[in-house]
Amino acid sequence: MNIIIINGPNLNLLGKREPEIYGKLSFKEYYQELTEIYSDHTLTYFQSNSEGELVSKIQEVGFTADGIVLNAAAYTHTSVAIADAIAAVTAPVIEVHISNVHVREAFRHHSYVSAVAQGIIIGLGLSGYKLAIDFLLESSQT
Amino acid sequence: MNIIIINGPNLNLLGKREPEIYGKLSFKEYYQELTEIYSDHTLTYFQSNSEGELVSKIQEVGFTADGIVLNAAAYTHTSVAIADAIAAVTAPVIEVHISNVHVREAFRHHSYVSAVAQGIIIGLGLSGYKLAIDFLLESSQT
Amino acid sequence: MNIIIINGPNLNLLGKREPEIYGKLSFKEYYQELTEIYSDHTLTYFQSNSEGELVSKIQEVGFTADGIVLNAAAYTHTSVAIADAIAAVTAPVIEVHISNVHVREAFRHHSYVSAVAQGIIIGLGLSGYKLAIDFLLESSQT
Amino acid sequence: MNIIIINGPNLNLLGKREPEIYGKLSFKEYYQELTEIYSDHTLTYFQSNSEGELVSKIQEVGFTADGIVLNAAAYTHTSVAIADAIAAVTAPVIEVHISNVHVREAFRHHSYVSAVAQGIIIGLGLSGYKLAIDFLLESSQT
Amino acid sequence: MNIIIINGPNLNLLGKREPEIYGKLSFKEYYQELTEIYSDHTLTYFQSNSEGELVSKIQEVGFTADGIVLNAAAYTHTSVAIADAIAAVTAPVIEVHISNVHVREAFRHHSYVSAVAQGIIIGLGLSGYKLAIDFLLESSQT
Amino acid sequence: MNIIIINGPNLNLLGKREPEIYGKLSFKEYYQELTEIYSDHTLTYFQSNSEGELVSKIQEVGFTADGIVLNAAAYTHTSVAIADAIAAVTAPVIEVHISNVHVREAFRHHSYVSAVAQGIIIGLGLSGYKLAIDFLLESSQT
Amino acid sequence: MNIIIINGPNLNLLGKREPEIYGKLSFKEYYQELTEIYSDHTLTYFQSNSEGELVSKIQEVGFTADGIVLNAAAYTHTSVAIADAIAAVTAPVIEVHISNVHVREAFRHHSYVSAVAQGIIIGLGLSGYKLAIDFLLESSQT
Amino acid sequence: MNIIIINGPNLNLLGKREPEIYGKLSFKEYYQELTEIYSDHTLTYFQSNSEGELVSKIQEVGFTADGIVLNAAAYTHTSVAIADAIAAVTAPVIEVHISNVHVREAFRHHSYVSAVAQGIIIGLGLSGYKLAIDFLLESSQT
Amino acid sequence: MNIIIINGPNLNLLGKREPEIYGKLSFKEYYQELTEIYSDHTLTYFQSNSEGELVSKIQEVGFTADGIVLNAAAYTHTSVAIADAIAAVTAPVIEVHISNVHVREAFRHHSYVSAVAQGIIIGLGLSGYKLAIDFLLESSQT
Amino acid sequence: MNIIIINGPNLNLLGKREPEIYGKLSFKEYYQELTEIYSDHTLTYFQSNSEGELVSKIQEVGFTADGIVLNAAAYTHTSVAIADAIAAVTAPVIEVHISNVHVREAFRHHSYVSAVAQGIIIGLGLSGYKLAIDFLLESSQT
Amino acid sequence: MNIIIINGPNLNLLGKREPEIYGKLSFKEYYQELTEIYSDHTLTYFQSNSEGELVSKIQEVGFTADGIVLNAAAYTHTSVAIADAIAAVTAPVIEVHISNVHVREAFRHHSYVSAVAQGIIIGLGLSGYKLAIDFLLESSQT
Amino acid sequence: MNIIIINGPNLNLLGKREPEIYGKLSFKEYYQELTEIYSDHTLTYFQSNSEGELVSKIQEVGFTADGIVLNAAAYTHTSVAIADAIAAVTAPVIEVHISNVHVREAFRHHSYVSAVAQGIIIGLGLSGYKLAIDFLLESSQT
Repeated sequence: MNIIIINGPNLNLLGKREPEIYGKLSFKEYYQELTEIYSDHTLTYFQSNSEGELVSKIQEVGFTADGIVLNAAAYTHTSVAIADAIAAVTAPVIEVHISNVHVREAFRHHSYVSAVAQGIIIGLGLSGYKLAIDFLLESSQT
Repeated sequence: MNIIIINGPNLNLLGKREPEIYGKLSFKEYYQELTEIYSDHTLTYFQSNSEGELVSKIQEVGFTADGIVLNAAAYTHTSVAIADAIAAVTAPVIEVHISNVHVREAFRHHSYVSAVAQGIIIGLGLSGYKLAIDFLLESSQT
Repeated sequence: MNIIIINGPNLNLLGKREPEIYGKLSFKEYYQELTEIYSDHTLTYFQSNSEGELVSKIQEVGFTADGIVLNAAAYTHTSVAIADAIAAVTAPVIEVHISNVHVREAFRHHSYVSAVAQGIIIGLGLSGYKLAIDFLLESSQT
Repeated sequence: MNIIIINGPNLNLLGKREPEIYGKLSFKEYYQELTEIYSDHTLTYFQSNSEGELVSKIQEVGFTADGIVLNAAAYTHTSVAIADAIAAVTAPVIEVHISNVHVREAFRHHSYVSAVAQGIIIGLGLSGYKLAIDFLLESSQT
Repeated sequence: MNIIIINGPNLNLLGKREPEIYGKLSFKEYYQELTEIYSDHTLTYFQSNSEGELVSKIQEVGFTADGIVLNAAAYTHTSVAIADAIAAVTAPVIEVHISNVHVREAFRHHSYVSAVAQGIIIGLGLSGYKLAIDFLLESSQT
Repeated sequence: MNIIIINGPNLNLLGKREPEIYGKLSFKEYYQELTEIYSDHTLTYFQSNSEGELVSKIQEVGFTADGIVLNAAAYTHTSVAIADAIAAVTAPVIEVHISNVHVREAFRHHSYVSAVAQGIIIGLGLSGYKLAIDFLLESSQT
Repeated sequence: MNIIIINGPNLNLLGKREPEIYGKLSFKEYYQELTEIYSDHTLTYFQSNSEGELVSKIQEVGFTADGIVLNAAAYTHTSVAIADAIAAVTAPVIEVHISNVHVREAFRHHSYVSAVAQGIIIGLGLSGYKLAIDFLLESSQT
Repeated sequence: MNIIIINGPNLNLLGKREPEIYGKLSFKEYYQELTEIYSDHTLTYFQSNSEGELVSKIQEVGFTADGIVLNAAAYTHTSVAIADAIAAVTAPVIEVHISNVHVREAFRHHSYVSAVAQGIIIGLGLSGYKLAIDFLLESSQT
Repeated sequence: MNIIIINGPNLNLLGKREPEIYGKLSFKEYYQELTEIYSDHTLTYFQSNSEGELVSKIQEVGFTADGIVLNAAAYTHTSVAIADAIAAVTAPVIEVHISNVHVREAFRHHSYVSAVAQGIIIGLGLSGYKLAIDFLLESSQT
Repeated sequence: MNIIIINGPNLNLLGKREPEIYGKLSFKEYYQELTEIYSDHTLTYFQSNSEGELVSKIQEVGFTADGIVLNAAAYTHTSVAIADAIAAVTAPVIEVHISNVHVREAFRHHSYVSAVAQGIIIGLGLSGYKLAIDFLLESSQT
Repeated sequence: MNIIIINGPNLNLLGKREPEIYGKLSFKEYYQELTEIYSDHTLTYFQSNSEGELVSKIQEVGFTADGIVLNAAAYTHTSVAIADAIAAVTAPVIEVHISNVHVREAFRHHSYVSAVAQGIIIGLGLSGYKLAIDFLLESSQT
Repeated sequence: MNIIIINGPNLNLLGKREPEIYGKLSFKEYYQELTEIYSDHTLTYFQSNSEGELVSKIQEVGFTADGIVLNAAAYTHTSVAIADAIAAVTAPVIEVHISNVHVREAFRHHSYVSAVAQGIIIGLGLSGYKLAIDFLLESSQT
C-alpha cells in the first residue's frame, strides 16, 4: 500500500520545540522507525510550513494514495483551504494530533479538518501516526 | 495486562440502532473477537445506560486497571460526573467514538471527557477500540 | 393498540409539587382515568427519576410498542442519552409537557427530545397526554 | 362554541408547497372536513400573508371567540406584533405547527407566539388543528 | 407647524389592552386632548397594524411634515423597513414608548428605530407624546 | 421569456432616498431602459412596502414566470415569510442588492433570502438587475 | 417642588468637550436658564466625576426630593452601584442623555440605569433636562 | 432537629481524589466528627453517584427534614432534575462546595442548584458543611 | 484576632433599602450584636460607596488583618480594581452576600471577587457575616 | 480593457472536485471560452493555492489592471491578508463564488473580501465570472 | 516639555503586590530614575485608586500637558468614564501596561482606553513608561 | 546585538497603501534610517506576504537572534502557525503595529501573536519599530 504522512507548520521543529508537550524525538527519526516497521508498504513523508503547499500536496497525492495521515498542526484550526482539498480528493484522510489539543487553548478545540477526515486520533503521542497507518492498512483489507 | 472497556448509553443496541451510522455488528460479537485477539491479557467489558453506574464503575476499576477504553456515548457531551471520575482515578483513559462525531450535530462536537482523557480516537469504527488497546499495551512497555 | 406513557423525574410528585404550575391531581389518578377512557387499548405507565432507567425503558418497549408518550421533564433539557434512545427505536414518540415551558426559565426552552420526537404537545395540562394518545390511535388508522 | 382557525403566510399554498414536508391536502379541503366533524360548533377560518391583517384579525375576534387556533407560520419566528395582539386579547390561543419545526433551520426553533399562547402543538400534521379544537372544547367544559 | 403622530400595531387597543401597563385612556381620547392643547398647530394622527402601511405613511408625510412622533410599538424591535423609511425622509422623528421597555422582555431592549430617530422618550406614559411635540415646536424655533 | 422584477420597501423612493448610496435615477426610469433593452421578452415590475403583498406576488407569479429578480430591501434581513414563499414556488429567484450591504450595518450582512435564492448579486448598482436578467435568459437556453 | 439635576463624569466639560456632539453651551449656563424658567420651584444641581459620590448624593436626596433628573454619563453603562442607589430611594428618577447614544459605540446602547428609572429621554440635547422637569412637575399634579 | 447531608458523585472518593484540591480527610471521617459535635440533633448522611437516586432522596426527605445540606458536586452544573426536586420539596436547602469552584473551569461557575437553594457556601473546605448546619439550627430558632 | 468587615455601596441603607430583600435591621445594629458576640476579638467595620476607597481600605488593612469579610455589593459585579486589591494583599478574604444573588438579575451572577476570595457565603442573610467570622477564627486555629 | 481573473485554492480541481456542486467543466476550458468572447480585451488568468501568492498577485496587478474578478475560494472566509491587499490597490474587485455559499456550512456565510470588494456575485455558476467581466466593461464606459 | 504619568488602582503597591508579575521595584523609586533621565523636562506623577480622581486629573492636565502616560490598571477594562475623559482633552495619551495583559484573564484583553489613546505599550515592564516618554518627546519634534 | 525586523503581508506597500493610515514613507526608507541609528548592531530585515515563509523565517532566526521585531500585519489576527513558531523559538519577540488596531475593525482587536510575544507596541507609527529595538537593546543589558 501507498501511504503518505503530511505534517503541517512547526512540526519540523519536533524534538526541539516545547519538548515537554511534544517529546524529544525529531519526526525524521520517528519516521525512520516507521519505514522499518512498514517495510512492505510505500511510506512517504512531506512537511511544510505553507498552507498552500499543503493544499497542493493533498491535491497531488490525494487521487492515487491509499491513505493520508495528516497532522495539519496550527492550520487544523484556521484552514478551510486544507479541509476543501481533503473533501476534493478520494484518498481517506486520518487526522492526527500528537498532544491532547483539548487541554490546550480553546481555539485548538475546533478543527476544520475533522469534518472531512474519516477519523481522528488525538493525544497518543507519536504513536498516533502508527495507529493511523495500522487502521488504513487494516481497513483496506475489508 | 488488565484492561476494561466501558460503554455508555445505547451502545447495547449496537447492530440494531441506526446501522447506517454504527454498523451491523453487535458490540458483544465484536468484544468476543477482541478477547480472542488479546488472549494474553485480561479484558473486561461493562456497559450501562446509567451515568451513575458508569461513574461507579470508573471508580471501582480506576485505581487497579492498567487502562480504560471509554466510549461514554451521549454522556460524553453532558456528563461532568464521568469526567470528574476519570480525573479522580489513576488508570489512563482512552476516549473512543465509533462514528465521526464532528459530522453530526453541533452538541456532539464538545466532550467533557476529552480534557481528562489521555487520548481520543474518533470515527474509526469498532477498530477504534482495538487501536486504543494497542496503544495501552504498547505505552505500558515504555 | 399498545401505548406506553413514560414520565421523567419529579413527575411522581404531581399534585404535591408546585400545584400552581402543575395542578393538584396526581398522575396516578389521572392515569386511572385514561385507562378507563382507552379500555379498548393496552396502556402502560412508567415513571423514573433516573435518566438511565428511562433510556433502558425506551429501549425495552421502543421496538414493540405502537407509540410512546414521553414527558422527560427535567431531562428534556439535559439528556442526549434519552434522545439517542428515541432515535434508536422504531416506535413513534410524542413529547408532552404539562406546563408551557416557554414562559419559564430560558434553559427550559430547548429540548433535546424535540428533534427526534414525531410531535410535541406543550402547555395543555394533563390533557396533553390524552391528545397524544388520540393522535397515536388516529394516525395508526391511516 | 365559537372557534376560529387563523393561518399565516404561505399556508394558502398547502398541498402545493413542499408537499414532502406539509402533505398534499389543501387546507381548504381539510377545513371542510373539520366543519363536518364539529358541526355543533361555529368554526371560522382566516388566512393572510400579511402580518398586519393577522394582528387585526386577532384583535377583531380575540375578545369574543371561545378559542383561537393559530398557525402563524413564518411570522411565528419574527413577529412581536402578533404576540402582542395575542397578549392583548382574552380568547385562549393554541399555537399549531404542521411540521416539526425543531428538525428544520435553527431560526424556526424560536417562537414569539409560544410565550403568550396557552399551549403549543407541533409536528402532528394537520391533526394538530383538530387536537387543538378538541382541547378548546374540552377545557371549556371545566 | 405640521406634526404627525404615527402609532404602530395594537396601539388601537390602548385603554383595552393590558391596562396595568398602558393605562385606561384610549389613544383617541388622549389625541383629542392634544389637539386642544396644540390648537395653533396642525396635528394629524395615523395608526396601523401593518408594517407596510407605516412605511408608506412615513414616506408620504416625511418630506413635508415638520416633525413625526412615532411609536412603532412591536415593529420597533423587528422592522428594518420602518427604520429605512425614517432614514429616507427629511422630517425629524421622535421615537416614543409609553411604558419603560427596559423593564420588559429582553427583545424589547433593542430598537431599530433609535439609530435613525433624532431622539427617544421612553416610559413617561402618554405624556411622552406631548413632550415630543413640545420638543419639535421648541427646536423649530431655533 | 417572462421575467418579473420585484422590489421591496422604500425602493419606490430610489433617486430620492439617500442618493449618495443608491444613486439619483428613479427605478421607474431605469425600468423603462430595461424594457427597451429586453423588448423581445416580457418584463413586469412590482413594488410594495408590504411584506404580505410581496409574499402574495411571489406566490402569484412564482409558478408561471421564467424568473424572478428580487430586491427585498429591508425585508431581506427580517422576513422568513418571503423566504418561505420563494421556497414554495418553482421559478428561479435571483436576489439583487444595489449597494454593497457588507459595508453597511451588521444586521444587513444576513439575508433570509439567500438560502433559497438560486444566486445573489450585490453592490453592482442598478446594473445588478440587468445582469440578473442576462443570467436568467442565458441559463434558460441551456 | 424640589427637583435635583445630577450629572455624571465629564459633563463638567460640557461646551468644551467634543462640541460637535454635545454643543458649545456649558451646563452651568444652561442650568442658569433653567433656574429662571422654574423660579417657582427649587432646583438643585450636582455634578461629580466619582461613582461613589453620585451614589451618596442619590442616597442623600432620594428620600426627600420630588424628582431626580439624572445623566449618569459614562457610569450609565458600567455602574450597578448607581442603579442600586436609584432602586433604594423613593424619588422618581428620569434618565437623560444629551446625545443619541444609539448612534454611538455599542457599549453605550446598554444602560444599567434604565431598568430602575421611571423614564428615559435620549438625544434631545439639553432640552432633555427641561422636558424631564416638565414631566416631573406635571406628573406630580396627577 | 433533623438535618440530612447529601453528597453527589465522586465525593465518596474524598481523601483519595485530587487531595490537593479536596484535602486528605475522607467524608466518612469528617461526618463522624459532625455527629459528635451535633449530638443533640439527628444528622443523616447520603451519598450517591446517581442523579436519579439524588433526586429520589431529596423527594424522600424533603417534606420532613428540617434542612438539607447539599453538595451536588458535578451534578451542580448539569442537573435540572435535582434543581426541580429541590423546588418541589419544602425543606430549606443549603448548597455547599468544598473547593472554590470559581477558580476552576468555566463550566463550574454555573449552578442549577443555586437558584433554588436558600443559600450557598463555597470554598470553605469541609467547614462549609458545619457552617451550613449552624445556619440551619440558628435560623430555625427565629 | 483582628478581623475587619468591609461593606460596599448602598449597604449603609440596610434596613431602609428594599427591606423585602435585605431585611429591616440596619447594619450598624447588627454590627453592634457582632461586637458583643466576638468581644474577645478585634472587630472593625468600614463602609463606603466609593470603589477607590474600598480599594484603599483593602490595601491598608490587607497586610495586617487576620481576615477580611467583604460584601462588595454592586462592585462585586463590576470592579476589577477591588479584585486586584484582594489579590495583592495577604489577608484571607471571605466574600459575603446577604441575598441570594442567583435569583436576581443575570449580571449579579458573576463576581470578580470570587476568583480571588478564599470562600463565598451567599443568601444566608446577615448570618453570612457571622459564619464568615466563625470560619476565619476556626481556620486560624489550624 | 485589461482584466484579470484570480482564482484561489482548489479551483484548479474544478471539474474534478465535487462536480455535483461545481460542475464538470474545468476552469481552463471555461477560461478558453471567455477569451474568445472577450477577444477585444486583454484577459489574464491566475490561480494559486497559496494565500501569500494571491496577495502578491493582487499587489502586482492591482495598480494597473482595469478590473479584477476574484474567487478567493476558501481564503474568502479566513484571509484578512487578501482583503488588505484589495483595500491597498486601486483596481475595482468583483468577488465571485460559483456555488451558493449561503446553503453550505455557516463558516462560508462570512467573507472578509466582501467588505472591500465593489460587488459580489454568488451562486450563478461559471456565468458569475462572465457577468463580472460584463459589469467591469460596462461600468468603465460610464 | 511637560509630561504627566498617571497610574491607576493598586499601582501604589508596586514592588509589594505580586512581584512575580510586576517586579520588586516600587514605582516611586522608578519614577525617581525617570526624573533624573529626563531632567530637561517637567515630569509629574499622579496615582489614585479612585476612578473619579483619575477622570478629574485627566481633565485638569489634559488641555495643557504635552503628553500623558497612562496606566489605568484595573480601570482599563471597566471604565468608560476614563476613556471619555481622554477623548475630551487635547493632550496625546499613551496607554502603558507593565505586564502582558494578553497572557492573563480574558477580561484583561479588552481596554476601553485603547480606542481613545494614541498608542499602546504592553508587557515591556517599567521600561514601557520610559519608551512612552521617548515617543512623546520625539513626536513633538516633528 | 543581532536583531531582525520581520514584516508581514502588504507592508511592502507601505507609503503606497492607504497613506492616511500608514504614512507616506516606504518601509525600506525607514529601515535605512534605522540601520544608520543602530550602526553598532546587526539589523536584518525580512518581509513576506506568505504565512509559511514568515513561519520558516522565525524558525530560522529564532534560536540565534537576540531579538525579533515582528509586525505580522493581517496574519496577526488569523495565524496560529506564526504564534506557534514564536512559542517554539527562544528569541524574545516584540509585536509592533503601526496604526492603532483598536480603532479599526473588530477582527483587528484580537492578536494570536500577543499571547506569545514578550511585549506589544501599537499605534506609535514607524517609531514603534525603533522603540522595540531600544527595548531589546536595553533589556539585554540587564
